[in-house]
Amino acid sequence: MHRLELTKPDGRALTLYAREAMGDIGPAPSPFAEPLGRFPHLRHHPLRDEWITYAAHRQDRTFLPPPEYNPLAVTVDPANPTELPVGNWDVAVFDNRFPSLSLGANEAPELIVDTAPGTGKCEVVVFTQDREASLGALPLSHIELLLQVWADRTAQLGALDAIQYVLPFENRGAEVGVTLHHPHGQLYAYPTVPPVPARMHQVEQAYYARHGRGALADHISRERSSGERVLYYGEHAIAFVPACARYPYEVWVAPIEPVATFCDLTDAQRADLARALKTVLMKYDGMWDRPFPYLMAWYQAPLDGVPHPESHLHAEFYPPYRTRDKLKYLAGTELAAGWFAMDALPEDKARDLQAVEVDIDAPATEKNR
Amino acid sequence: MHRLELTKPDGRALTLYAREAMGDIGPAPSPFAEPLGRFPHLRHHPLRDEWITYAAHRQDRTFLPPPEYNPLAVTVDPANPTELPVGNWDVAVFDNRFPSLSLGANEAPELIVDTAPGTGKCEVVVFTQDREASLGALPLSHIELLLQVWADRTAQLGALDAIQYVLPFENRGAEVGVTLHHPHGQLYAYPTVPPVPARMHQVEQAYYARHGRGALADHISRERSSGERVLYYGEHAIAFVPACARYPYEVWVAPIEPVATFCDLTDAQRADLARALKTVLMKYDGMWDRPFPYLMAWYQAPLDGVPHPESHLHAEFYPPYRTRDKLKYLAGTELAAGWFAMDALPEDKARDLQAVEVDIDAPATEKNR
Repeated sequence: MHRLELTKPDGRALTLYAREAMGDIGPAPSPFAEPLGRFPHLRHHPLRDEWITYAAHRQDRTFLPPPEYNPLAVTVDPANPTELPVGNWDVAVFDNRFPSLSLGANEAPELIVDTAPGTGKCEVVVFTQDREASLGALPLSHIELLLQVWADRTAQLGALDAIQYVLPFENRGAEVGVTLHHPHGQLYAYPTVPPVPARMHQVEQAYYARHGRGALADHISRERSSGERVLYYGEHAIAFVPACARYPYEVWVAPIEPVATFCDLTDAQRADLARALKTVLMKYDGMWDRPFPYLMAWYQAPLDGVPHPESHLHAEFYPPYRTRDKLKYLAGTELAAGWFAMDALPEDKARDLQAVEVDIDAPATEKNR
Repeated sequence: MHRLELTKPDGRALTLYAREAMGDIGPAPSPFAEPLGRFPHLRHHPLRDEWITYAAHRQDRTFLPPPEYNPLAVTVDPANPTELPVGNWDVAVFDNRFPSLSLGANEAPELIVDTAPGTGKCEVVVFTQDREASLGALPLSHIELLLQVWADRTAQLGALDAIQYVLPFENRGAEVGVTLHHPHGQLYAYPTVPPVPARMHQVEQAYYARHGRGALADHISRERSSGERVLYYGEHAIAFVPACARYPYEVWVAPIEPVATFCDLTDAQRADLARALKTVLMKYDGMWDRPFPYLMAWYQAPLDGVPHPESHLHAEFYPPYRTRDKLKYLAGTELAAGWFAMDALPEDKARDLQAVEVDIDAPATEKNR
């Protein structure tokens, strides 16, 4: 992996990653001239004991680009700068201009609830220079690079005392609110372990203390034995619709052996995880012959400097569709009670995805490079 | 409150409620001739330690009504039955034909995760006979009746050993997935306390043990002292945008003094709670002069037979809009991490709602009666 660290004119960081040597790269551009003005703050919820972040500067988005403007394209005309420079890079990571969490945050208002600075980091992860591509359309070596990039970000951010958890995710599709279709994801680095991973961690710790094995490792061996919901099974990685799916086409992707974070993956594990991931993504897009929207989130161990044998790196996909033309809305029982209600069985949805044939080794064409 | 219990031809219960004596009511109709076939089951999520309910029979909905068919209208032609009879009733409650939880559930499949019967109850609560009305458009006496109906359902269902929690809620608007626009809500009765109220209950218990007061009662007195986000303040009830709002137009409505469940409300508290609720609903609809979509959920104490001085009945509204024409999508950080990110301050959104003038005592016209 090749890496190049740059700083934008407005002070934000840009890191470029490539499989091969990048050669010359011009200066880091930015569509914004000024440094960031205001910083986010946190407020404590007294009935849920959780933090909410408020970034009112997000409303300051006075920058109104024309509809065809793509800030994730490379800058071809310096008079019209984008977020990214021309050059031989594969994946780029830069600081979100409108962060919900920021390392620069150092104060919070006095309010009737507890408050704190919105410390953390929000990064944009550009998957490729090809705006017509998608994560699943990238060659396996490119997906492997992305797994290395997530490891690098986890290592860099996890080394900071202020950061306790790193969550890479991708929101894909207009159905989940995405307006910018250039293939990209995001990464949030949190000052404490957020509620969902905290709960998962607590459950995994209790399970490990009782059984001496990981909860997900045991679940994976049961999914493997059953086989009924498995979409990919390789030497080191697996993908399946979990028996406890909360979304109709929910899929989990994981290394078979427990690995605490992206940083702990071996080359062989990473390569097979890329194969599992590409299989799922191609099945999703192949099922209805159209781009399949989803939220993809990667859970890893808290970054608190102690070993986490109970943790098990994995992705969870939450697609918004329940059938080809019907969305699953999260409503009363899901949002208010946290009790999910499903009108489809995971076994049936797994069969839909199993039936989609894909060839992850077919040569992919990469454009714009 | 007047109440009449009936049974539909397919075995489902129907209870009618009215402010005045109902007189003669015909037999309970049903669009369905056959009793329910299959029952839901629960599966346990090994990484979140929570239950998910699967009701695959929901796919069996072979009944395909014409677009103008309203199953919540009264039955005028016995050859085309709806869910409700003609008569002088104000609010009706009946068993959902496609329940996610059912008292008839008594078995679960053997799977690689723990399973259990999907015990519980899903009820439809029809707010009025007037399909053109809305909850906020109903007269105060009618809203008071609804609060009594929720109390009656809580008492009836809470008396069952199988039920530990009752959550009344309303999903309103196409934006939250509602296709049937006759004013109605739902009520889920759960076999265990679901994750969100369980968390709330745990936090409230810890707070009460430490302070000898309720967490929400203390929050309410701080909101009242500040006044900055208050939308209604009466002798017994309050409505406000909470300082820790997770949705841009989130509002809480509560009795000022802690009350564990709907059953514990005094007449005076109920009357003022109806005023607070109607104020919020009229402000919502008045803000942009159009029906304002939301999820409204009513939290109360677990129904486990012990006193809950730490619990405090209240409604939370989660509207999907962040501005007049922009939806707030729950995505990566909210759904995957449980860490909400807001780009608007609750104080600003409260001002928007405070600016909407409403007259909750103006005479309302009730149609179709």
